[in-house]
Amino acid sequence: MRIAVDALGGDRAPREIVAGALAAAVRLPRDEVFLVGDPTLVEPEVDPDGPPNLSLREAGGPVGMGEEPASALRARPDASVAVAAEMVREGEADALFSAGNTGATVAAALLRVGRLQGCRRPAIATVLPLTSPVLLLDAGATVMCRPQDLLNFAILGGVFARRYFDLEGEARVGLINVGEEPGKGNDLSREAHYLLSESPGVRFVGNVEGREIGSGVADVLVTDGFTGNVVLKTAEGVAREILAMLRSAMAGGPISKLAAGILRPRLRGVRDRVDPENYGGSFLLGVRGSVVIGHGNSGARGVENALVGLSRTGAGLAQTLEAALAAAHAAAGNAP
Amino acid sequence: MRIAVDALGGDRAPREIVAGALAAAVRLPRDEVFLVGDPTLVEPEVDPDGPPNLSLREAGGPVGMGEEPASALRARPDASVAVAAEMVREGEADALFSAGNTGATVAAALLRVGRLQGCRRPAIATVLPLTSPVLLLDAGATVMCRPQDLLNFAILGGVFARRYFDLEGEARVGLINVGEEPGKGNDLSREAHYLLSESPGVRFVGNVEGREIGSGVADVLVTDGFTGNVVLKTAEGVAREILAMLRSAMAGGPISKLAAGILRPRLRGVRDRVDPENYGGSFLLGVRGSVVIGHGNSGARGVENALVGLSRTGAGLAQTLEAALAAAHAAAGNAP
Repeated sequence: MRIAVDALGGDRAPREIVAGALAAAVRLPRDEVFLVGDPTLVEPEVDPDGPPNLSLREAGGPVGMGEEPASALRARPDASVAVAAEMVREGEADALFSAGNTGATVAAALLRVGRLQGCRRPAIATVLPLTSPVLLLDAGATVMCRPQDLLNFAILGGVFARRYFDLEGEARVGLINVGEEPGKGNDLSREAHYLLSESPGVRFVGNVEGREIGSGVADVLVTDGFTGNVVLKTAEGVAREILAMLRSAMAGGPISKLAAGILRPRLRGVRDRVDPENYGGSFLLGVRGSVVIGHGNSGARGVENALVGLSRTGAGLAQTLEAALAAAHAAAGNAP
Repeated sequence: MRIAVDALGGDRAPREIVAGALAAAVRLPRDEVFLVGDPTLVEPEVDPDGPPNLSLREAGGPVGMGEEPASALRARPDASVAVAAEMVREGEADALFSAGNTGATVAAALLRVGRLQGCRRPAIATVLPLTSPVLLLDAGATVMCRPQDLLNFAILGGVFARRYFDLEGEARVGLINVGEEPGKGNDLSREAHYLLSESPGVRFVGNVEGREIGSGVADVLVTDGFTGNVVLKTAEGVAREILAMLRSAMAGGPISKLAAGILRPRLRGVRDRVDPENYGGSFLLGVRGSVVIGHGNSGARGVENALVGLSRTGAGLAQTLEAALAAAHAAAGNAP
């Protein structure tokens, strides 16, 4: 797989991005990694004795975190994320990674890489790191969805999760809702429930309540981008809060400190299991290439994990997703 | 305050409900607690030497957890929750508590107690037990909301939170959304943001993302009943999962077990802080009386805490809420 990395996107770019890309290139000797960005900024961070499958691709500067994405991309067509997207469009790369301005990455992907046929709107797919990891989409690309969008997300998410989690059979898809019964929910979730249950291309396991999202009842959870974004951030916020409460609860008194010291490695294990850096990024599904959106504060470890996970999904993902959409729409008798 | 308790509602009724009501009556000597239900079921649980402010009110049996609320209430107008609601309607009680079928409690409240003037739809207000407890509404009464509903929830929640949390000044109200900027979100959240920021009756602190819900930036969080229900259940589910991960991480090896034993009281403190039983119930706001919906599996401690919290909000809550709605609508130049 050939991966174009926006070397200048992210709060800790270029240093941490370059370090993560280097570590990934070492772990993925059969893949090719391109560091895309202004050479005067990127080159000083690159080890000249780095692996042979890591190379530089000249571009301009980054799109800043606070910039309005569309106008920034119009004003600076050589921005690092835009050039990385261009490489995917031109077939020089299979995938694009950026930890920069999320809106700019989504806009560059939509404008330069383009949408899959049969997919009105893209979705951000992200792994919730709970007891049973589960792929949540949409985590925020399309805040207002139609029922058909949720069906598309189910098809894309199902195919993707099977590769990403290396599942034996079809991925089990659940719909986030406020109750288990089919009649529960708002107009969108009720209509989506019907579409999903009627679609032969989806292994639909029914409605899933917030309480069950990490319980292993589904491999994929679909919802609109508003709800998905709120679910993701609530889960992250609550996890962080409880770990902080535990830390401060164990802080007082010499005996407690000793006991906490003994348990620290085990507690660290829990913290690491729920750490978003384990996955390092989210996937933008519905575009004609693999696009990974890293956390804004990605460190080298997050970048490395994101690129390794990306490599697992393989080149040609977009074609497979497009074929799955076409098959599902044909089976449902819909025009794509 | 006079509180009508549905003695037969809940998985552990009547025993745990009666025990909790008794404990609350002892703690609240100036309040009056009525146990409402079929005497053949309730009486055997009641201590004949109980406090003088606890008495029995005859009614029929419960509405079962699996029953369709409206038809159950039509078929059995003497159901315990219906009689408790009737007591509020007739002015014999100020408040109603039920840990039974939530739909039946909401239906009984809407049909028998009635809505506040100026409030199209009610909301379920619930406390999220995080580092900074925050009142979330709507947690599921109205899954499809209009922007004006969210403004009403902000007014109701603001007045309620000030009493419930015993705040010095006006409660700070946030809007759950996918970004901090005013233009973020779906149609509902964008329009609600505008209404809230224009309303002089609301101390609006802007959009709040899922990550910040427990961080103390707001005393009240408003959203539609679909999103609120998903947020509540996600928060509960993630909290439970992380505590379970910690328990199993600390289980192995004799030294770890010893250390875990030393820390157990402190860890229990964290578990207790995020335990929903601390609050014991949610409030149905927007009806002409105080209505508390207990958890289905409420034990005596949850019932006791719910009744003590209810007592803190005082009699006359409904009138105060109605006046606040009228004032806010008048200030905004709206007809109520």
